[in-house]
Amino acid sequence: MICKNLSVNNDGHLTLSGVDVVELAQKYGTPLYIYDENRIRERCRTYVDAMRKAFGDDALPLYASKAASFKQIYRIIGEEGMGTDLVSSGELYTAASVGFPLEKAYFHSNNKTDFDIAYAIDEGVGYFVVDNVEELDAIDRIAGERGVNQKVLLRITPGIDPHTYAAVATGKVDSKFGSAIETGQAEQISKYATELKNIELCGFHCHVGSQVFDSDVFIRASEIMLDFVALMKKKYNFDTKILDLGGGYGVRYLKEQPEIDIAANIHEVASFMKAHCEKLGIEMPAIRMEPGRSIVADAGLTVYTAGTVKRIPGYKNYVSVDGGMADNPRYALYGSPYTICLANRMNATVPTFKCTIAGRCCESGDLIQENVTLPGDIKRGDMIAVLTTGAYNYSMASNYNRLGKPPVIMLRDGRDYIAVKRESLADICKNDI
Amino acid sequence: MICKNLSVNNDGHLTLSGVDVVELAQKYGTPLYIYDENRIRERCRTYVDAMRKAFGDDALPLYASKAASFKQIYRIIGEEGMGTDLVSSGELYTAASVGFPLEKAYFHSNNKTDFDIAYAIDEGVGYFVVDNVEELDAIDRIAGERGVNQKVLLRITPGIDPHTYAAVATGKVDSKFGSAIETGQAEQISKYATELKNIELCGFHCHVGSQVFDSDVFIRASEIMLDFVALMKKKYNFDTKILDLGGGYGVRYLKEQPEIDIAANIHEVASFMKAHCEKLGIEMPAIRMEPGRSIVADAGLTVYTAGTVKRIPGYKNYVSVDGGMADNPRYALYGSPYTICLANRMNATVPTFKCTIAGRCCESGDLIQENVTLPGDIKRGDMIAVLTTGAYNYSMASNYNRLGKPPVIMLRDGRDYIAVKRESLADICKNDI
Repeated sequence: MICKNLSVNNDGHLTLSGVDVVELAQKYGTPLYIYDENRIRERCRTYVDAMRKAFGDDALPLYASKAASFKQIYRIIGEEGMGTDLVSSGELYTAASVGFPLEKAYFHSNNKTDFDIAYAIDEGVGYFVVDNVEELDAIDRIAGERGVNQKVLLRITPGIDPHTYAAVATGKVDSKFGSAIETGQAEQISKYATELKNIELCGFHCHVGSQVFDSDVFIRASEIMLDFVALMKKKYNFDTKILDLGGGYGVRYLKEQPEIDIAANIHEVASFMKAHCEKLGIEMPAIRMEPGRSIVADAGLTVYTAGTVKRIPGYKNYVSVDGGMADNPRYALYGSPYTICLANRMNATVPTFKCTIAGRCCESGDLIQENVTLPGDIKRGDMIAVLTTGAYNYSMASNYNRLGKPPVIMLRDGRDYIAVKRESLADICKNDI
Repeated sequence: MICKNLSVNNDGHLTLSGVDVVELAQKYGTPLYIYDENRIRERCRTYVDAMRKAFGDDALPLYASKAASFKQIYRIIGEEGMGTDLVSSGELYTAASVGFPLEKAYFHSNNKTDFDIAYAIDEGVGYFVVDNVEELDAIDRIAGERGVNQKVLLRITPGIDPHTYAAVATGKVDSKFGSAIETGQAEQISKYATELKNIELCGFHCHVGSQVFDSDVFIRASEIMLDFVALMKKKYNFDTKILDLGGGYGVRYLKEQPEIDIAANIHEVASFMKAHCEKLGIEMPAIRMEPGRSIVADAGLTVYTAGTVKRIPGYKNYVSVDGGMADNPRYALYGSPYTICLANRMNATVPTFKCTIAGRCCESGDLIQENVTLPGDIKRGDMIAVLTTGAYNYSMASNYNRLGKPPVIMLRDGRDYIAVKRESLADICKNDI
């Protein structure tokens, strides 16, 4: 099994956190997102503890909301002492609605609207992570109108390509995000920020990419960022209070992928940074990191009911499920790998066959995964589980083909409860006139 | 301009159907989907009239709901005498809720659930377009439980690759859809369907792909399908009442793309088919076609407000807008081309610059279009229109980053009205516990 929270019970059913996935599918219907709350909390604690130990008590991990944003997530991460990284008024609204302490919220995005800025300031957001000059001006103006001195970080592009997918590599100079050190634009915007009346520049942020398995990438990024911190101290006598290293630790979608020891990684990065600060003669800023995927991905899975099983002699085999790109667009978007299993017959010993798991959307590209090996007697009514779907599945879900979003069921200490209700047919039409 | 419903007024503003797009953006906010109802109706009439003239009064175009499904669309196509092609209970629910005559509804999908089948039969759906044997059995069983003799067509794969994108090419043998003639599976399932008690097999359906500009593709498909009809007559004395040729006519996203004369194309296909029926000694079945994109695509556009304008010397320029892959995932999914213009300054004469139009989602791959040429003085607050977004934009929209779906505004004879309300912050959380 690719995560320790997965197992098989005496009925040959897949279990998550000890709970029978097939029984949950029967109780709530399919498609169904299931999350293991205990695993989410465990991952939160890993980051909180490791960062405190490695960097000191002023270090704080911020949960990257875009991975999965709904009310219950903010309750959990709030209880675990995490901060959060938000990218829209919608994410802020969700966090605020359950009383998440917004002074620990960092508002990102390459393009914040005036509405976003005003709304976030009015709600008392802790920090904006400012992407560019226009935004800095807008925050200065809107904060000024409210008599607020707004804390900000600046998003800086360190110029690193972490060798991940082009679509999720964001630390490169050629990016819609941030201001590059290489071009001198990072220095310009930093100097400019210190001159604005209603802005308090507290530090810098970078993000080098996603699904990073190599601690080298974070060490290299922190080196570039600390060099920049030293430059800002030397040239402008600017004290960087906060340095945010972004997110990006990889998770296991396939058993061939490594399991990262996050605590060990963080300690390795911290050791390097302490030595580098000493070398540069600067104070270590308070450190932030932004785990999203690595908090929720392997806490979640999706269960579908198999429908059509199509054998095309001389071509391929297809197994269609009752969801698809509407609840998980990641294979259509990026060709993302997933581990698939037959949840109701995990111990099936019949000969296997190779197949493509197709969604139900009216589009040939609506596939969940290709070249999957499943028991050859799979049939309509069997239950298919797609593992490691806790990140970027519910959050990216659409109503394509007017399919309702599946519900989110959470498991805590063997008990199941609804975190997000299933979207009904009426819900889908709720704004139609 | 790529469609005749677009123009520029004296203020230098883009107009759709004579209405000032900038004024609409100011009235309703951005991002905003705007549809030209008159254009939708004109396209409906083109199909209805051309099919009647070419194939006779029993011919019927079915609007492919997946292109854009909301209540007002079904009112319009209903009034224009179109039928509809549905792929889910959600689309059926939407059509039914405005009194669309469901005897003219054809329920597609490669994977209908038992719920879909029961719900559609109970609502009086005209036809199922059956994809496979499991589904046929399920319909037979569920119809039997209700004492209904359910009309169906069978989806047949003619084995044509229309040279379109892999993701939208669906007539090939290697497809999650239908039963292939080449493998003998089409004949098998047809024979089987005639033997089922609660099923009335009325004919066959095929769909060869999307964005087809070549009438040759439909002629070739109709030839293969008529040969199959003749085989079924000769071998099983089966009379095919309905032959559904699917959809797929292309629309102009770029001015380099041709504008298809749909009426002329339909007449060309009909001429071939009449001659071929004569040659085969069979009656011409009642013909169905399933236009979706070509009904709504160029009736629609999206307006955004520009935010960040980022010039990275030696690299690229980025203009970020207040929407993105959440309201239009087609560039991220397929690299789809779009025509972009500066809606509030259509006559700007300043030197242009080449840029990437980026969305606001927290993801590097969230781009709307690359290599776009816009006036070089574009700035925060300008309005950017993306043309030809009437198909597969609203219908594919997600809440990624917890962004609310933009509203759908319709224009009729110079008057604007709301067809779908903007999704509010509270709407996004409506099912969160």
